[in-house]
Amino acid sequence: MFSINQEYLKLSEYYLFAEISKKVQEFQVKYPQSKIIRLGIGDVTLPLPKAVVGALHKAVDEMSDSTTFKGYGPEQGYEFLRKTIVENDYAARGIDISADEVFISDGAKSDLGNITDILDRSNRIALTDPVYPVYVDSNVMAGRAGDFKDNKWSNIIYLPCTEDNNFIPEFPKERPDVLYLCLPNNPTGTVWSADVLQKWVDYALDNKILILFDSAYEAYIQEENVPHSIYEMKGAKQTAIEFRSFSKTAGFTGLRCGYTIVPRELKAGGVSLNHLWNRRQSTKFNGTPYIVQRAAEAVYSPEGKEEVKKMIAYYMGNAKIISEGLNACGFKVFGGKNAPYIWLRTSDNMSSWEFFDYMMNTYNIVGTPGVGFGPSGEGYFRLTSFGSKENTIEAMNRLVV
Amino acid sequence: MFSINQEYLKLSEYYLFAEISKKVQEFQVKYPQSKIIRLGIGDVTLPLPKAVVGALHKAVDEMSDSTTFKGYGPEQGYEFLRKTIVENDYAARGIDISADEVFISDGAKSDLGNITDILDRSNRIALTDPVYPVYVDSNVMAGRAGDFKDNKWSNIIYLPCTEDNNFIPEFPKERPDVLYLCLPNNPTGTVWSADVLQKWVDYALDNKILILFDSAYEAYIQEENVPHSIYEMKGAKQTAIEFRSFSKTAGFTGLRCGYTIVPRELKAGGVSLNHLWNRRQSTKFNGTPYIVQRAAEAVYSPEGKEEVKKMIAYYMGNAKIISEGLNACGFKVFGGKNAPYIWLRTSDNMSSWEFFDYMMNTYNIVGTPGVGFGPSGEGYFRLTSFGSKENTIEAMNRLVV
Repeated sequence: MFSINQEYLKLSEYYLFAEISKKVQEFQVKYPQSKIIRLGIGDVTLPLPKAVVGALHKAVDEMSDSTTFKGYGPEQGYEFLRKTIVENDYAARGIDISADEVFISDGAKSDLGNITDILDRSNRIALTDPVYPVYVDSNVMAGRAGDFKDNKWSNIIYLPCTEDNNFIPEFPKERPDVLYLCLPNNPTGTVWSADVLQKWVDYALDNKILILFDSAYEAYIQEENVPHSIYEMKGAKQTAIEFRSFSKTAGFTGLRCGYTIVPRELKAGGVSLNHLWNRRQSTKFNGTPYIVQRAAEAVYSPEGKEEVKKMIAYYMGNAKIISEGLNACGFKVFGGKNAPYIWLRTSDNMSSWEFFDYMMNTYNIVGTPGVGFGPSGEGYFRLTSFGSKENTIEAMNRLVV
Repeated sequence: MFSINQEYLKLSEYYLFAEISKKVQEFQVKYPQSKIIRLGIGDVTLPLPKAVVGALHKAVDEMSDSTTFKGYGPEQGYEFLRKTIVENDYAARGIDISADEVFISDGAKSDLGNITDILDRSNRIALTDPVYPVYVDSNVMAGRAGDFKDNKWSNIIYLPCTEDNNFIPEFPKERPDVLYLCLPNNPTGTVWSADVLQKWVDYALDNKILILFDSAYEAYIQEENVPHSIYEMKGAKQTAIEFRSFSKTAGFTGLRCGYTIVPRELKAGGVSLNHLWNRRQSTKFNGTPYIVQRAAEAVYSPEGKEEVKKMIAYYMGNAKIISEGLNACGFKVFGGKNAPYIWLRTSDNMSSWEFFDYMMNTYNIVGTPGVGFGPSGEGYFRLTSFGSKENTIEAMNRLVV
């Protein structure tokens, strides 16, 4: 009798965004006249940049002619894109990353979900809390999480990030083997200064911890002294893998492209993780579509850069509208300065889900209950700046009235 | 200290196609005048069908307009494609598959590589030999293969498929938990009749074995009484997962799209595998690009079907040229009737690699040594029909002279 991976059965049926969607649907059936504004899910709304659209059309035409047709590409991604990334995202910041340390994929979610394939089951996982649920769920599946008790997984080390510690946790009492960091953070929208991140890199180096650094929102950083890449930190190439995405940078959520940096000097027991990840990708992945890689390349063209800048300015304009609107109403507001996420304390000590209902019922505004991202998210609520400017303004006007 | 998945270290550095490519390169440096014809790698060469190209351009335009832009899609794939697949590939053959049993992905290699995520490590694996290397390597990574001794993995049950058994193995002495089947077969190009496949489905049902059925070459089937889907067999929905691909069907090797059928009635210990795979994909995958799914949909349009038919006829014409050419030279030839692969016995009892060198040195023809697909591939050689008709004819003319 074949048998299933029993760890899967530990995962709850409950899925945050499905639960929200169900509640919204029920509300709409009950109040069909109400005009709901969704500031909940982190999906972009602006169309693809023109430079990207042009590159897609051109690449599609190449695929329609036998002299320029592209079949299987390298599992690691085409050299043209790997080099473009190195030049623009690393060399331009004085970071020495080589093209064979860049792995192109269909998105950061896939890479973040699959990365622990190359790690032993015994590794102890730590993560900041609240956090993107994929880190937790993928480790539950791999048998590293233990049991779910009191709203926590028994083998996972949670590092609470709340207003009390300014969203910078203390070093954990127990030493982890692997540490997930997401900066700028989803869901809190907060960032760490270079000093703080360097301390964590040093801590990881001292304790031989692998940092899995998710910088999917890097393009939203506005302030100085906020690192764009963990490799700006001294020694980080010996301790960290970095995950990036074109999803929020250039509106690629439906086009699917991201990349992961696995430095060659990152080793465990003398074995290069770059080598292991290369083996994983060569065996279980067949590369990102050629046309999508040409689209990603166009993000770095002069026109592409200009358009991306405008897109991000648009979303960050919304973030400002939300932050100022909430502040004016007396909410405690975090994030939104270097990230498309606004994290707020619920009013009147409401739980995250009570506040969700309150916002939907009273103002017809949908956000995301903070507790959905982990136990330390209780009492918080996430709004995103990915809506239209008009809707964002209207949502804030509703709160003031 | 974080630790790596030690199973990865068991995998050899040696990669079949990299080895071939190296040998070809060395030969070309030595003999720059020689005109090498590559009939080795299974990659298509004809451009995308016009119907697909049109659908891609249209979908790209949708992505460039905020009113039609698509962000995150369902991890399982869009309903429009899942329904189209059900109607054309299943309902049209009298097979009852529902849209929520279809999972769209970036290709069969990803799904075949990832599927055992949902299975326990303890499952005993069986596979026909020779076979597509991903089945073996992904199970080595998962710790199911044991140790590599005498050209075999100690925990894997090999089912030799050679001319002696007409490429239909006996039932294994030891009962496996999971059985990989690839029909039409890569690399041998052979198929099983409905009777034979039904016997294996019955055997799996009796022994509670999970069949992982790779039918990536289904579109190449020409003869009657060769099953196109394992679900044509009685009871198969309780025992089998089916993997399909647009790569060889419609030239999608560089566009990346496939799909996997996980029937809801396929269960282990009362748990539906459909549910588990859905959880896996929702957690570690973010869907196939919208534009690629529209391209796949266009494969089923009347124009798309007509073009695909012509593409396959072209490649199968090459298969016929190769089969007849080799036959005329006295080779023992298999496959090539319902698959784009031709499998031949090496001459003069040469080993697969000796024959590789002989073919390259004497005729400047590159094929794939059979032993690269498993121990029972020794003494065989694979040629593919994916070259141009002109090159295919020239290759055969070289052999005759």
